[in-house]
Amino acid sequence: MTDAFPPNLLTKSAAQHLHELPGHSKDAGVDGWLLFSAASVAYLAGYETPIESGPAAYAPHPAALLCMNGEPPELFLADAERLPDPPTSLLVTPFASYTIDRPLPGLSGLIELLLARLRRHAGATIGIEPDETPAAVLTALMAGLPGLQKVDASGALRHLRTIKTLEERALLRAAVRLTDTGQQTAKRMARPGMTEIELYGEIHKSMEMMAGTRVPILPDVLSGTRTAEVGGPPSDRAMAEGELVLIDLVPRLHGYWGDSCNTFAVGEPSSVQRVIMGGIERVLAGAIAMVRPGLLASELHGWMHAEAAKIGPAFAHHAGHGLGVAWHEEPRITSYNDMPLEAGMVIALEPGVYFPGEFGVRKEAIMEVTSTGADVYTGWFDRQ
Amino acid sequence: MTDAFPPNLLTKSAAQHLHELPGHSKDAGVDGWLLFSAASVAYLAGYETPIESGPAAYAPHPAALLCMNGEPPELFLADAERLPDPPTSLLVTPFASYTIDRPLPGLSGLIELLLARLRRHAGATIGIEPDETPAAVLTALMAGLPGLQKVDASGALRHLRTIKTLEERALLRAAVRLTDTGQQTAKRMARPGMTEIELYGEIHKSMEMMAGTRVPILPDVLSGTRTAEVGGPPSDRAMAEGELVLIDLVPRLHGYWGDSCNTFAVGEPSSVQRVIMGGIERVLAGAIAMVRPGLLASELHGWMHAEAAKIGPAFAHHAGHGLGVAWHEEPRITSYNDMPLEAGMVIALEPGVYFPGEFGVRKEAIMEVTSTGADVYTGWFDRQ
Repeated sequence: MTDAFPPNLLTKSAAQHLHELPGHSKDAGVDGWLLFSAASVAYLAGYETPIESGPAAYAPHPAALLCMNGEPPELFLADAERLPDPPTSLLVTPFASYTIDRPLPGLSGLIELLLARLRRHAGATIGIEPDETPAAVLTALMAGLPGLQKVDASGALRHLRTIKTLEERALLRAAVRLTDTGQQTAKRMARPGMTEIELYGEIHKSMEMMAGTRVPILPDVLSGTRTAEVGGPPSDRAMAEGELVLIDLVPRLHGYWGDSCNTFAVGEPSSVQRVIMGGIERVLAGAIAMVRPGLLASELHGWMHAEAAKIGPAFAHHAGHGLGVAWHEEPRITSYNDMPLEAGMVIALEPGVYFPGEFGVRKEAIMEVTSTGADVYTGWFDRQ
Repeated sequence: MTDAFPPNLLTKSAAQHLHELPGHSKDAGVDGWLLFSAASVAYLAGYETPIESGPAAYAPHPAALLCMNGEPPELFLADAERLPDPPTSLLVTPFASYTIDRPLPGLSGLIELLLARLRRHAGATIGIEPDETPAAVLTALMAGLPGLQKVDASGALRHLRTIKTLEERALLRAAVRLTDTGQQTAKRMARPGMTEIELYGEIHKSMEMMAGTRVPILPDVLSGTRTAEVGGPPSDRAMAEGELVLIDLVPRLHGYWGDSCNTFAVGEPSSVQRVIMGGIERVLAGAIAMVRPGLLASELHGWMHAEAAKIGPAFAHHAGHGLGVAWHEEPRITSYNDMPLEAGMVIALEPGVYFPGEFGVRKEAIMEVTSTGADVYTGWFDRQ
């Protein structure tokens, strides 16, 4: 990244969240927290779970964070993994994961450590994330510590993450800047005869070179009639002159996820394509202009959907979502969600129209909700 | 991929495994199986879990496979996901995952379906993979179905996967061929001044273009003194003339993992580098020549380690491992493992030496154990 970007921003951000966590225990009805999700260990411990190749044979769950009220927080980290720069308040304790002198231990070493730590908390109530906690761990804790109570803290944690700190906003801005690089590469390199997968290779390479490291990414790369399919990975389809290309890039940088979608023509767009792309840009620009504290997510969705429907078959997906240590979080910009926007939220807005069998257009920008409106992070959209 | 590669080979392979699974129930002491791991759903249902961007907000666990003896096997698949070509014997049942008219349901829809299916199996014993099963599911099943018994079937499943069928060997050969492409790109493109991450971008792009689709990959890309560190992701370090580059590529293609490691010099190697690289190649060639049914994994490890130690500080990692729907499985080629090699195993062998602060050299080839020796899949190694 650029030299101006403080390398330990994720650590600083996590340290602050870690410091504040005990203050939320009462509201959540817990005496402590035992957290396995990639989102939580990034948010609270600054640990970026390696995800690009799936769960590792050596460490299907590489990290677990235990925060008991009144005790130092402790991250249990598979000894095949590293956390180079942990928050100073955090204990980092390795557990056996990669072994060559005996069979792979799985989670047994972690379970032993957790049993030892929790033994002095008989009768405590711990907040967990049941969808992300391995059954092996919970079964062993419940069997070994009969007084231990557990509650689902997933909702409380998601709620905590909705408003972003200064540090998080800087992290998100950097992740969005990375999508700008990807979008610029896409527009510069796309040409007739090139396959979607080759274009994607150029996009991804340019983003990884900017980051100076690997960048996990969730991409939609669609061309021609595929753009009507809303989403999907790059294929070996070759792009043709005059076709539309839809590029949605969701990369992780320093633990935080960027997002961005653009649709453009290979070569010159037809006048129909031009009108529809211009229409969706105006919906996006109008939505950005509406953003302010107090506006309900459902109102924003309703306006965007109604405006898109004036152009064509309007999106059947969310109109937007929060961004953070997960690539889709609160506030979800959806019809049911009466959550009011608040200053410090960082949201994606992504109106689209999709003409089945012909083409689709989606444009997406990321912005911070400020006290007076929106601070747009996405660079390429303004420049169009 | 090449036109010669049957596109439904993963489905065929899974169908066969699915057909044979009930026959293993007695040995495993179970009346059925409930499986969540990416390895198991690929092996038995032909489903390739999308992994490149970590657990999805919409479906932290996208697939669960339920196989009760005497009933058709059923894959529960998040409705945000697709399995275009399931085995004909497999029921595929969607569960709600992505919703826009109400909050995201997490695993609640899946849990409801599992409770309904398992209600008629009161008192049954199901085999599970406790490290990969979400606590939310197991807790709900145990609470809702008090008679249900669970046993850890992870070991039994790993054992099943050790010997590869004809289809699996074709799948692994294709995944290894993909690593050949990556290694050829690495050798062709590496030049003084290029960063590791740029070289990696070219490697990954070439592999994805060959596959015609995204390729999840676990890479070590190290240059200069970093090669002594054994492994690690590409960084923004620039390579210099005469330095060594170590490239270990572990990609997934059609559900199966390839593997391959080469070490070469940018420009001309020094005579010391040449001698050491030649030495490690001879250890690898010697190990390949030893491979035959009946040879113990521990014997193979012992010979390789002793030979590498004659050259320099010998590897402190495994000497090799099985490959399949996981990138590291049995037979682990390690000092403790007295498992005999058998025809139909597909293994990686990867001797190395690492001179701290100077450089490291590792060479790795993949081979099938045949009735008489080894059939080497790795193309670039023979050609050197």
